[in-house]
Amino acid sequence: MAQIHTNQTLSVNLPEVLVLGPPSIFRIYEKHLSQKFMLLKPWESPIPLEEFLSIHAQNTTAVLTSSVVAYLSSALRLLPSVRLVVTSSVGLDHIDLKECRRRGISVAYAPSVFSADVANLAVGLWVDVLRKISAANCFLKTGLWPVKGDYPLATKLGGKRVGIIGLGRIGREVAKRLEAFGSKISYQSREKKPSVSYPFYTDVCELASNSDVLIICCALNDQTYHLINREVLQALGRQGVIINAARGAIIDEKALVQFLQEGKIAGAGLDVFEHEPNVPEELLELDNVVFSPHSAVFTEESCKDLYDLVVGNLKAFFSNKPLLSPVQFDDFMR
Amino acid sequence: MAQIHTNQTLSVNLPEVLVLGPPSIFRIYEKHLSQKFMLLKPWESPIPLEEFLSIHAQNTTAVLTSSVVAYLSSALRLLPSVRLVVTSSVGLDHIDLKECRRRGISVAYAPSVFSADVANLAVGLWVDVLRKISAANCFLKTGLWPVKGDYPLATKLGGKRVGIIGLGRIGREVAKRLEAFGSKISYQSREKKPSVSYPFYTDVCELASNSDVLIICCALNDQTYHLINREVLQALGRQGVIINAARGAIIDEKALVQFLQEGKIAGAGLDVFEHEPNVPEELLELDNVVFSPHSAVFTEESCKDLYDLVVGNLKAFFSNKPLLSPVQFDDFMR
Repeated sequence: MAQIHTNQTLSVNLPEVLVLGPPSIFRIYEKHLSQKFMLLKPWESPIPLEEFLSIHAQNTTAVLTSSVVAYLSSALRLLPSVRLVVTSSVGLDHIDLKECRRRGISVAYAPSVFSADVANLAVGLWVDVLRKISAANCFLKTGLWPVKGDYPLATKLGGKRVGIIGLGRIGREVAKRLEAFGSKISYQSREKKPSVSYPFYTDVCELASNSDVLIICCALNDQTYHLINREVLQALGRQGVIINAARGAIIDEKALVQFLQEGKIAGAGLDVFEHEPNVPEELLELDNVVFSPHSAVFTEESCKDLYDLVVGNLKAFFSNKPLLSPVQFDDFMR
Repeated sequence: MAQIHTNQTLSVNLPEVLVLGPPSIFRIYEKHLSQKFMLLKPWESPIPLEEFLSIHAQNTTAVLTSSVVAYLSSALRLLPSVRLVVTSSVGLDHIDLKECRRRGISVAYAPSVFSADVANLAVGLWVDVLRKISAANCFLKTGLWPVKGDYPLATKLGGKRVGIIGLGRIGREVAKRLEAFGSKISYQSREKKPSVSYPFYTDVCELASNSDVLIICCALNDQTYHLINREVLQALGRQGVIINAARGAIIDEKALVQFLQEGKIAGAGLDVFEHEPNVPEELLELDNVVFSPHSAVFTEESCKDLYDLVVGNLKAFFSNKPLLSPVQFDDFMR
């Protein structure tokens, strides 16, 4: 009790932040954050969430959250005083932006902290799938090399036609790296980008027909939900490989499993899944897939950058200064 | 017998090539090669190797081999008529070049077919070790994600100081890719390369002291045997990572195992080992190492290119034309 009392005394003058999550930076920076803000953490309370929120409803002006929080919209409905939502994610699919704008709630996010990290993991998965690195690692670790000898031939990276879906910050970083590997790049996007000369497709199927590899770099929204369906996978074809370090639900996962099982596409590198952390058993069993636990953004260095950005946004809000990385609603609501 | 007779009849007019190996391209192209040349394959004969060689000693003018053949020098001593050795490798450490020159034996090799492939695997191993891709793949495949939740943070790739040992064909390809990832590149080489502006070190220890990652891209020879010793690993330090897709014996493997076990360096990505295909059990047990079975060059596309090069060199020899990819002895014997 004494300990709790001391903590409360210490943080009494700190601005209050309701945390819905916890976001990933809590793994390292929870203590640092709690020295700067009075953090309200419903998951540590014995009180049911709805009741917890109603107790703090009038005082809560700032919410800190992350992309794993599916109940954010319903929580916000119980919090009439909220004026700021800070999300530690690049993606905004968990936030009802229309409602936030209607209520005058500002949203801050992490648009560029992770771009290079996500691009690096996407490219890493691409190299891994084509060059069979994870599978080779297992081959050695299970002692098979001296027994079986020859390891199956891999696929050359150079000269492959890579179709990038979504040429935003992350897509452009992916393209930069792929150029160094000698890939032939084309892309699909809402609009043609005047700054690049890569072949542009409006139709994903057409991009898939003209690609050996598809790398998904777009946001998840109504237009991109299950964008990669049977038709696209069919167009990608038997030699095709798909890489996803964006959002799981951009791919129709059931269709993907079937196409992989039946050899109708050649392989996949997946950092994201439709129902994380659950991955279908029949997907995990496949040898032509490299898996990663939605960890594209999880590097030590970027966690520090993200912590700085989150703190900067919250401090700006509480001192009535402009946010460091506000969502420009118009960019996301066309 | 009839079948054998037919084959012999068919190949009677084909030029004879003694195969010491077999080289890796036999996995796919043995049949194609045997339609162009009369292949002598001692490993298929019940006769002991020495006797086999003595039977063919007078007629054998051309030898086809690969880097896995450790007995090449002693075999060549039994073959006085040899005028050409074609090796399907980039490396020449298995060939006594001095002796070949003395005897007037030309050597053809595969200097550039694989440069991009080797660079790609080296870079792939680098991404894998820092971003923990192979380990993450195991994490998911063994069902740990829903159970354990958070996966350990990885290390950011951008901004890392990467020291390239040997800035030849492969080293330059590695550098090109690393630039796209935002690495700070420096290198060690026999001589400063006037064409590049990267910081240059003559001393490997000094390069290691100024690097977060070392990538070995040099040939194995008397000067580079155990080039990476305790002193270099010490200089690389606790956060350091080493990548080797060149030759196993460039690293003192015992020292490497000890440094990895004791956390005196952070990790390694290894395609090559001192006593392949045998890898020390205590090395295979380490979680901070990504393993690959000397497969940097094994892509389907490059095997085809290599096959074309081997056939081209042999055809050139038998028709008294210049070899496509002769070893210039002076380049390797300074």
